[in-house]
Amino acid sequence: MKINTFGIIGGDKRQLYCARSIAQDGYGVLLYGFDEFEPGKEMAMVPNCDLRSAADADAVILPMPLSKDGKNLYAPYSSDNIQFGEVTALIGNKKPVFCGINGSLAPEKTAGLYLRRYSDCEDFAVANAVPTAEGAIEIAMKEYSGTINGSKCLVAGYGRCGKVLAAMLKGMYADVTVYARKSSDRAAANAVGMKTVSDLSEDNEYELIFNTVPAPVFSAQILAKIATDAIMIDLASLPGGVDDEAAKRLNIKVIHALSLPGKAAPKTAGIIIKNAVYHMLEDDE
Amino acid sequence: MKINTFGIIGGDKRQLYCARSIAQDGYGVLLYGFDEFEPGKEMAMVPNCDLRSAADADAVILPMPLSKDGKNLYAPYSSDNIQFGEVTALIGNKKPVFCGINGSLAPEKTAGLYLRRYSDCEDFAVANAVPTAEGAIEIAMKEYSGTINGSKCLVAGYGRCGKVLAAMLKGMYADVTVYARKSSDRAAANAVGMKTVSDLSEDNEYELIFNTVPAPVFSAQILAKIATDAIMIDLASLPGGVDDEAAKRLNIKVIHALSLPGKAAPKTAGIIIKNAVYHMLEDDE
Amino acid sequence: MKINTFGIIGGDKRQLYCARSIAQDGYGVLLYGFDEFEPGKEMAMVPNCDLRSAADADAVILPMPLSKDGKNLYAPYSSDNIQFGEVTALIGNKKPVFCGINGSLAPEKTAGLYLRRYSDCEDFAVANAVPTAEGAIEIAMKEYSGTINGSKCLVAGYGRCGKVLAAMLKGMYADVTVYARKSSDRAAANAVGMKTVSDLSEDNEYELIFNTVPAPVFSAQILAKIATDAIMIDLASLPGGVDDEAAKRLNIKVIHALSLPGKAAPKTAGIIIKNAVYHMLEDDE
Amino acid sequence: MKINTFGIIGGDKRQLYCARSIAQDGYGVLLYGFDEFEPGKEMAMVPNCDLRSAADADAVILPMPLSKDGKNLYAPYSSDNIQFGEVTALIGNKKPVFCGINGSLAPEKTAGLYLRRYSDCEDFAVANAVPTAEGAIEIAMKEYSGTINGSKCLVAGYGRCGKVLAAMLKGMYADVTVYARKSSDRAAANAVGMKTVSDLSEDNEYELIFNTVPAPVFSAQILAKIATDAIMIDLASLPGGVDDEAAKRLNIKVIHALSLPGKAAPKTAGIIIKNAVYHMLEDDE
Repeated sequence: MKINTFGIIGGDKRQLYCARSIAQDGYGVLLYGFDEFEPGKEMAMVPNCDLRSAADADAVILPMPLSKDGKNLYAPYSSDNIQFGEVTALIGNKKPVFCGINGSLAPEKTAGLYLRRYSDCEDFAVANAVPTAEGAIEIAMKEYSGTINGSKCLVAGYGRCGKVLAAMLKGMYADVTVYARKSSDRAAANAVGMKTVSDLSEDNEYELIFNTVPAPVFSAQILAKIATDAIMIDLASLPGGVDDEAAKRLNIKVIHALSLPGKAAPKTAGIIIKNAVYHMLEDDE
Repeated sequence: MKINTFGIIGGDKRQLYCARSIAQDGYGVLLYGFDEFEPGKEMAMVPNCDLRSAADADAVILPMPLSKDGKNLYAPYSSDNIQFGEVTALIGNKKPVFCGINGSLAPEKTAGLYLRRYSDCEDFAVANAVPTAEGAIEIAMKEYSGTINGSKCLVAGYGRCGKVLAAMLKGMYADVTVYARKSSDRAAANAVGMKTVSDLSEDNEYELIFNTVPAPVFSAQILAKIATDAIMIDLASLPGGVDDEAAKRLNIKVIHALSLPGKAAPKTAGIIIKNAVYHMLEDDE
Repeated sequence: MKINTFGIIGGDKRQLYCARSIAQDGYGVLLYGFDEFEPGKEMAMVPNCDLRSAADADAVILPMPLSKDGKNLYAPYSSDNIQFGEVTALIGNKKPVFCGINGSLAPEKTAGLYLRRYSDCEDFAVANAVPTAEGAIEIAMKEYSGTINGSKCLVAGYGRCGKVLAAMLKGMYADVTVYARKSSDRAAANAVGMKTVSDLSEDNEYELIFNTVPAPVFSAQILAKIATDAIMIDLASLPGGVDDEAAKRLNIKVIHALSLPGKAAPKTAGIIIKNAVYHMLEDDE
Repeated sequence: MKINTFGIIGGDKRQLYCARSIAQDGYGVLLYGFDEFEPGKEMAMVPNCDLRSAADADAVILPMPLSKDGKNLYAPYSSDNIQFGEVTALIGNKKPVFCGINGSLAPEKTAGLYLRRYSDCEDFAVANAVPTAEGAIEIAMKEYSGTINGSKCLVAGYGRCGKVLAAMLKGMYADVTVYARKSSDRAAANAVGMKTVSDLSEDNEYELIFNTVPAPVFSAQILAKIATDAIMIDLASLPGGVDDEAAKRLNIKVIHALSLPGKAAPKTAGIIIKNAVYHMLEDDE
């Protein structure tokens, strides 16, 4: 199927940047759900249209997350609610529809749509590691009264995000230690010059601790050993990997930093969405 | 002369971190001018005392800048004005006194004091390049809707600050170009993997432009060629290196980022002050 | 089972460094098969003994590769042949025996031994990526008349070795492009600042090409497009990934660089063997 | 003066690569003194001519060093001696002549020529730091039985060469310490993530030591403290910075690595010569 136009319905700044970037590639873009967005450079190339036109496009791009209340599309810049049922009725089941994870929307509501999740595209997760890592560094810079350059950092976890985060911190001349349980992860970290630890219970003082592990890694005991003067930035999805109660008791600042790509770098995040959409369309061919 | 106690009178957070770090080294620290600072971890080790005690210490550390109004010490956390004349009378002329640049204070006012400026210590300027560069990166992260990672950056000037800034941006995987007029500066930048340009009038689009050159480098003509979609961060002391009027006309955002060490990383800046003080005392021996 | 002594029988310099490092850890080491090695610092701590004593140790470390002729142990520094059958008879089947891949040794010959291959330890392959990558860089430095710094390099493949190789070349300020077919590999390379290509048939001139892909990637057509002035270093096991005939016709130098860890960095390779042995013993506990 | 042709008389491989690169820029190149060079890719574009033609070119490029015996041009690929007096008579005093340092040639012999030394061009020294540093790394790779990656390296001196060398070693994931006496040099090294020491007499074991300081830094006492298991690569011009007698006694391997650009990377070195020539010609305009 040849795609000439994309309908972009709802979502936040990421979708606007996605829209702009698709328009710059020469496609028609039909935008709905941004009437309250204060016009700026991001909007310049893509005017708003009505819902029916957007739903009529050759492919439709829905927000990320799809919904926050289980009833309406996530559309923080829309003056009206955009009911999910109304949108799906207009879209029909003959065209590719792209969206983020469902959030609280009941699965049966999306039945009938030819629906593709961004997260089904492996590149999407890999690419999002960059704005996630960089968003974490931005928070660290804001919160920490010293410089990252020369600071003693711990990165817990050496998956997609941990890898990029550790590499960028090292590139800023931080003194980085990677905590990973798998010895092959530690070997891979060593190979690119990282210090590693397999056990956090040894005394050691870090100034900045970044957690990417979705498991209770930072217990009260561990916190008392390595974090008494640290700022902790927890990137793992809730409840995260830190014993928040214990941290509070120990007067350790913990920041739960979630959904960083959209917050810290909506332009990059929008282009990553675009690339995922293009990639999935190519796979269809 | 053996120094056992340091008096720290006035100044901002940098002086507090300086005080804490000196105390951690085992010296006595007598602090005055911070009665309005909300107690936090920074204050924990160093209680306030009266002005006379602080002035009686073996060496005295005055703020940076020394004064903003030409009459009183710069002391944003003091509930009272600290008159410069009163302080100097108490200090006397027998002991080393350290301070930042004079600001608006008439030179004759400091006559008689055994006064040393931080900036007389070469390390001080070199070391301050780090919090300056990192402060500039923090601003870029905050203002730019994309990631530094992968962005197209121009660093104008390859002196102390330009060098560290370019290296850190590259370490974050930005695509960095260095502009320098001296060909030996460009050769030095090439040697550590930087792209370089000697002429900004060639068409080229940058996303982030950092200026460290205290000269009118970015004229209207240049801005129109390379900066129409850029954010500009000007680190050169006022009036900076950018034609602000032209930038406004072209709808280019320019941020004059000054005094970054104290704003972005007061802890690091405070330790740099401490090191300069120690270094100058050693040279006295 | 408590291990106090290690028997090391046959092998090349790697085994000597492995022996030395094990001895430095405080274990007894019984070495056989190095009587023709010219004594140097490597030998200082570990004297030769007879075969029976070495085979009597609590654990036995055999060479890598195990055998080259299918009959005798690989033992380039031994004045005598070390028959495999004789060794196994002395070792018996009650203790852990470590070795490299079998080479040409018939599998039934090793039956009865409690045999562990280094390659069964995942860390082993990850860690060996380092001396492999560095060995490839050493060859490039020797063969290429320019500097790696500033050279235009292509790294084909982004697996364990490709990752470390690309990162080290970039760290030396080469201009690195990664070729990878999987888009998620390219995304991972982009995330740490690499240029990437998914298709080699576009015109492009590289000065140094490193292949890690065990598949015929570099056909005559590709070579003619991108390699006419290049040096090619093929790290993929034979037959490698380059059309050697075509390369010859095009006057392109191709170096098949195999078994690099033992050649370029026997000390590092020996310690990697030691770590694999320790790791597998720990897993036994 | 408009330059259309360059005469290149004598010299080693660097001059050949210089010749080739100038020819690729579109100038006429007249080459003399390479009749014994085995034709290869380097020679392809630039055939030999007679001495008179080469001397008649608009500008003349003489070798580096100019002479080794004080009488003849340095011309290792020439079957005949090229007498300096004969060359200068043919060149005359009306055109720019470029050369390396004089070597043993008496200064009066060059009187009358419009002579320019490569080293008068500041870029030349800066740019040559790269092939020097990389040549040192190549030697280290060849001599050291471990990998640079992960090795404990000391770089003594933080001038042009020390800076690039330390940065490239760090980029290869070595554990680099910089020794510098000036505290501002140490501050500059710290700013880009280097460890530093101001005093070598403290116990510390390095695996690779690179000296760039032309002073007797490595005395017997120092060697005994930090180098007993090290390989030393001395880049300082003779007599270098190492007590060779003491090193011998201590069984420490010392390699005096001189003239590295021409040996390790003649192509790069040749292009650096070309750039210096171009640069000096531009300055003439």
